[in-house]
Amino acid sequence: MKEPFVAYIRKLQDTITSAIETIDGAATFQEDLWKRPEGGGGRTRVIENGAVFEKGGVNISEVHGKLPESMQQYFGVKDADFFACGLSLVLHPKNPMVPTVHANWRYFEMYDASGTIVDQWFGGGQDLTPYYLFDEDAIHFHRTCKSACDKHNISFYPKYKARCDEYFYNAHRQEGRGIGGLFFDYLKKSDTMTMKDWSAFVTEVGNSFLSAYVPIVEKRKDLLFTKQQKDWQEIRRGRYVEFNLVHDKGTLFGLKTNGRIESILMSLPPQVQWRYDHHPEAGSKEEELIKVLQNPKDWV
Amino acid sequence: MKEPFVAYIRKLQDTITSAIETIDGAATFQEDLWKRPEGGGGRTRVIENGAVFEKGGVNISEVHGKLPESMQQYFGVKDADFFACGLSLVLHPKNPMVPTVHANWRYFEMYDASGTIVDQWFGGGQDLTPYYLFDEDAIHFHRTCKSACDKHNISFYPKYKARCDEYFYNAHRQEGRGIGGLFFDYLKKSDTMTMKDWSAFVTEVGNSFLSAYVPIVEKRKDLLFTKQQKDWQEIRRGRYVEFNLVHDKGTLFGLKTNGRIESILMSLPPQVQWRYDHHPEAGSKEEELIKVLQNPKDWV
Repeated sequence: MKEPFVAYIRKLQDTITSAIETIDGAATFQEDLWKRPEGGGGRTRVIENGAVFEKGGVNISEVHGKLPESMQQYFGVKDADFFACGLSLVLHPKNPMVPTVHANWRYFEMYDASGTIVDQWFGGGQDLTPYYLFDEDAIHFHRTCKSACDKHNISFYPKYKARCDEYFYNAHRQEGRGIGGLFFDYLKKSDTMTMKDWSAFVTEVGNSFLSAYVPIVEKRKDLLFTKQQKDWQEIRRGRYVEFNLVHDKGTLFGLKTNGRIESILMSLPPQVQWRYDHHPEAGSKEEELIKVLQNPKDWV
Repeated sequence: MKEPFVAYIRKLQDTITSAIETIDGAATFQEDLWKRPEGGGGRTRVIENGAVFEKGGVNISEVHGKLPESMQQYFGVKDADFFACGLSLVLHPKNPMVPTVHANWRYFEMYDASGTIVDQWFGGGQDLTPYYLFDEDAIHFHRTCKSACDKHNISFYPKYKARCDEYFYNAHRQEGRGIGGLFFDYLKKSDTMTMKDWSAFVTEVGNSFLSAYVPIVEKRKDLLFTKQQKDWQEIRRGRYVEFNLVHDKGTLFGLKTNGRIESILMSLPPQVQWRYDHHPEAGSKEEELIKVLQNPKDWV
């Protein structure tokens, strides 16, 4: 299960970074190979100051070794070894009419002292964070997610769409981080799904990413925008930072287990604003967005 | 103990906001009175887009009622009532040569079912976060802290200086948030200190705040700075955000117990940058700052 998925995310990283460079037309990804002292490492690719993308990262990592203390507690196991690999991406566009996107596909194995696999699962998803809402973009993104899901089980889309709305939620602001997409975790062998079936599902979602996001970028990247609209984007990026640093389990886990800080925090936007008690004008496009974030919609 | 301390922080808020408005010369504080549904409330005062201060807040709150669930767990008590009051301030100057400052002075009481005080303590401190290091400013700030401490007990300054360096530490970056000052908590009745003695100590520190900070602002506020130096300030402000959202107990506690979000998050800087894997040039003033943040100095 492990080798083919590692090969898959390596290839997917190439496919995605190459597509993103083509759309951007100006900037290219900077690559950093890093090693984890306790075992494994990663390939971080970051794009900055592009024509379309202000900042973004498309990273893969494959790490293994003794399960860190904090994770042993979390999973309620002792002296286990683990293997984890995944691709994580965040893209922060320059134009506030283009949404930020996040995606992640990962695979995890846990071993006992004899090296036998005692647990294994897939996780991941993809979700959209717009600054201005274009219904047709939200519908396109969610429909693409649904098509990928439906090929495997028609119950997956509603289930993982709801989990995404639940997970990417800024409880202290009582609003979603964005308009969601898919989120799934602990996808394990069951009566109806083998690990191979889950692998096929997760790679199906991974393969749908570019067709879910790229058409939206193409359609919005050349729209005109004002200084006020750029400010709004930067204020909303502040909420993105709040979610990632206060609520996101992946980020906090990375920060507390000596992960590679720069690869973890590449998700943070390039320019961010916090204003005191900022509220959009009644009836504005900005207020319309907030209302949708407070009450997730059924987009398909 | 409660009434005089409440009266003290109300008056101190007036003194500090009035002094800050005078130095700024352009902006004034906007005041928001708020009520906490479960009991008590506060007076938030925020300054934005000033000539000297880009953003800042000087807030007081007096809250009471049933001790929230999360706090009961934290203190290992059941069905307790509480009273808490304090003044919290953060000032983010425009000029990167002027340091950001944070201070807090607070008092807490816990009651049993009959309304009897079962526990009470003071806490607080003040600390400096420079973007460019002027040794004489750091020395002035720490000496002022030390003078206030020494009037009560010569062991206080070294103890609370060390606690400040420990507390305001970005573990995931392996560097201090700033160059410290004082931090103390759970100041309770002991063989040598009555609650009245602690009150005298905490108000002494509160009274020292303006003389610790204002001379530094006066000296640096009109220095020239470049776009690169402003960028550096905004990148360092990113570390400030990381500390407040990832590590600061007060902020996280507020976010998780339904505090007034805008009063809590007024501490976040107005304009912030995150760049991937940013490192200052070897031998630069920026690198010099980092070295001191990695190895706290004895300033007095």
